[in-house]
Amino acid sequence: MLYKKIDENDLQQFRSLLGAEGMSVAAPDLAQCASDHTEDFVFYPEVVLRPQSTAEVSAVLAYCNQHNIPVTARGAGTGLSGGALPVAGGVSLDMKRMNRILNIDTQNFQVTTEPGVITEVLQNAVKEKGLYYPPDPASKGSCFIGGNIAENSGGPRAVKYGVVKDFVLNLEVVLADGSVMWTGANVLKNATGYNLTQLVVGSEGTLCIVTKIVLRLIPANRHDLLLLIPFHDASEACRAVNDIFLAGITPSALEFMERDALECAVHYFGDSSVPLPDHVQAHLLVEVDGNHPEQLIEEAEQITAIAEKYATDPVLFADTAAQKQQLWKLRRIVGEAVKGNSIYKEEDTVVPRACLPELLQHVKETGKKYGFRSVCYGHAGDGNLHVNIVKGDMSDHDWQYKLPEGIRELFGKVHQMGGTISGEHGIGYVQKTYLSIVFNATQLALMEAIKKAFDPKGILNPGKIFA
Amino acid sequence: MLYKKIDENDLQQFRSLLGAEGMSVAAPDLAQCASDHTEDFVFYPEVVLRPQSTAEVSAVLAYCNQHNIPVTARGAGTGLSGGALPVAGGVSLDMKRMNRILNIDTQNFQVTTEPGVITEVLQNAVKEKGLYYPPDPASKGSCFIGGNIAENSGGPRAVKYGVVKDFVLNLEVVLADGSVMWTGANVLKNATGYNLTQLVVGSEGTLCIVTKIVLRLIPANRHDLLLLIPFHDASEACRAVNDIFLAGITPSALEFMERDALECAVHYFGDSSVPLPDHVQAHLLVEVDGNHPEQLIEEAEQITAIAEKYATDPVLFADTAAQKQQLWKLRRIVGEAVKGNSIYKEEDTVVPRACLPELLQHVKETGKKYGFRSVCYGHAGDGNLHVNIVKGDMSDHDWQYKLPEGIRELFGKVHQMGGTISGEHGIGYVQKTYLSIVFNATQLALMEAIKKAFDPKGILNPGKIFA
Repeated sequence: MLYKKIDENDLQQFRSLLGAEGMSVAAPDLAQCASDHTEDFVFYPEVVLRPQSTAEVSAVLAYCNQHNIPVTARGAGTGLSGGALPVAGGVSLDMKRMNRILNIDTQNFQVTTEPGVITEVLQNAVKEKGLYYPPDPASKGSCFIGGNIAENSGGPRAVKYGVVKDFVLNLEVVLADGSVMWTGANVLKNATGYNLTQLVVGSEGTLCIVTKIVLRLIPANRHDLLLLIPFHDASEACRAVNDIFLAGITPSALEFMERDALECAVHYFGDSSVPLPDHVQAHLLVEVDGNHPEQLIEEAEQITAIAEKYATDPVLFADTAAQKQQLWKLRRIVGEAVKGNSIYKEEDTVVPRACLPELLQHVKETGKKYGFRSVCYGHAGDGNLHVNIVKGDMSDHDWQYKLPEGIRELFGKVHQMGGTISGEHGIGYVQKTYLSIVFNATQLALMEAIKKAFDPKGILNPGKIFA
Repeated sequence: MLYKKIDENDLQQFRSLLGAEGMSVAAPDLAQCASDHTEDFVFYPEVVLRPQSTAEVSAVLAYCNQHNIPVTARGAGTGLSGGALPVAGGVSLDMKRMNRILNIDTQNFQVTTEPGVITEVLQNAVKEKGLYYPPDPASKGSCFIGGNIAENSGGPRAVKYGVVKDFVLNLEVVLADGSVMWTGANVLKNATGYNLTQLVVGSEGTLCIVTKIVLRLIPANRHDLLLLIPFHDASEACRAVNDIFLAGITPSALEFMERDALECAVHYFGDSSVPLPDHVQAHLLVEVDGNHPEQLIEEAEQITAIAEKYATDPVLFADTAAQKQQLWKLRRIVGEAVKGNSIYKEEDTVVPRACLPELLQHVKETGKKYGFRSVCYGHAGDGNLHVNIVKGDMSDHDWQYKLPEGIRELFGKVHQMGGTISGEHGIGYVQKTYLSIVFNATQLALMEAIKKAFDPKGILNPGKIFA
């Protein structure tokens, strides 16, 4: 696809559409929008546009569609698959000025928001009204709800409450040609036409631009308990995960961390509150929540009893809010902490939960075979294992040519187990060459036909998802 | 669209593909597949095909696509929007021989099934393993799980557990050209390409034919309580619905029945166990479930206290399994019982829950204005109100010409409230002329483009969804 390069005339048009505040070609702005949290990629946009309204988004898209200018939407830039990278240049459509929470409907347990609201800000705003929006990616303190929609994000609470897609009722979107529409209705059940809402969630900015979001909320739980369980063997920790579910317990979080993962986090903060003796090889961080404290204590006791069937050190209970916060802070920083140590690649494998021990074994065996070291952690209760591959002393040549073979082999195994290559990060730029491992020509052709139905000229986030 | 009429040569081909057992042009078979539970429509197919495998479905579709023969999939024929009606003739693809439960995965809480399994049979099979598949349409004793997928069915338990779409992980489907593919993976989280799974759920047989289904299951709850609350005023019953949620309670069912609805059901069975004094105008049937009986009792007491703020008769508690079954039997028969009395139309309105009293008022006002009587009931906890319009002594002329105007007006109001025209029955044949009330030209064109991406020649369930 050949796109038009942006010229002075285009810039003048953009300026007239969005005002001086809404457009920038200043070097720091272009640089800021050239990267996200994905490895070390840099792709400069030609211009950064910052719309303030649906009408402005519509005007920009209509113009770009007419002139064949690529448009890559950008949230907070915390994505891990390169969704916000403007790989074909053109417009970086920075949504940060569309950051108003429009309505919290305490009668119907719904919130209507613009996409540029920080997820945690949204969570806190509804919490003040006694309501709860559970999906909480590790980056919740900085990521935007719009980006969460684009990637169908998850996070620790997905195991009990579901991922972003399970909370989206309705979306206002702008199509490539500038037309504006809602995808559904503000209702809990909907059997009216095709489910465009669910098609847009997770479409990574390739189908349309989301300008308003209606989310379902639930009543806030009044109590939770948090346990950190140190295992002597990482594989046993993975096995214990399934045992908890087989006991009929659905924790509100069930996180796995290899020793190296927690160690990185502990070093990152210089935190010495969590003991890390040599024989501890993995941890499970388990949370249960609900309205009845005695029930949670009972569940925590059951979980402890399950853990104690394996070789473990004593379970640590977080007694205070501060201790809980501290443990979550460690868990949430793991990704960033690992990255701080080395060049890395982050994989986002997901398998049926009971296959987790097998997945971990494959990761390690593949690492041995192809010579890479990995730090594994993630949302074990969902079967979602983040595999951070660190370059360490791997040669540049092996990193570039041998490692992708190893990743292909691992993803092949994941697929055989009934799993897939991304649980919550998306395909974006970095996983697209692997998509053919899990989808055949029929599936890919169908997805491309859908893309074409939404965006016939291919101006929206080109170079993503499809190889 | 002009379709080919089926001739002797086609029949010979079908016979060679499916065997003598797999094909019928016998009058009783054609008649059986000419109707479903939707009003009194009759559209004869030219042939009934009964495949036994994905390969057979694939062979049939490849042939029909090549020869431009329409194919309408049929489950158990319990649909209420005419999805299974072969309005363009051609093939009725009867899925009843694909009725095997293929695997119950007790480790991962998943079941893999063919589409022709009766929903209740599936529920019972997984229950024997301690697992639970919640979606339970009123017709659960006869409807097929495949039909539930096609219509994105709900039922009473949706209010706590979600509708069918919330339990579908992965689907094997046959596209119009006969190619076979899976829509996703057998995982709880998936950010890998577009969500084809959710696009297929609720697509009413217009995009592809579902041949295998992977559903997520949850651990079975050990206890439940059931309450029947008689209200003196129907509007107050609707108001009480929202009060229950505002108190932080999420019942596992919250059903509303107008007096006339329950009266029809009581007469249908000749049941005199439920008192129906003249001053009782509506009932709420409320279920709470969980693992802790004392918690359920507490919730039931809270619910009773909420109800007693309104004018009510004493709350009836179902004390035994037999009493519970009896109440559910009455609730589930309402639709059929109402239909037994008169020619009728069943609407499936859904609004944000707190708008329910306003919706009921609009229904009654619209009825007065256009001269129709309605019997209302449904899944009040979801804001989903079934409006059974009975012909009674309305003239044929008014029924045919005036009533649709009234329905349009009502649906317009529903749309204004943020709701939509079908919560769980689908659009199918009977609602398609109303779709333009909730979707504009942009939305409809997009849906039609998606249809075309799946089924370029339009052989799959023609005459449905789109007017």
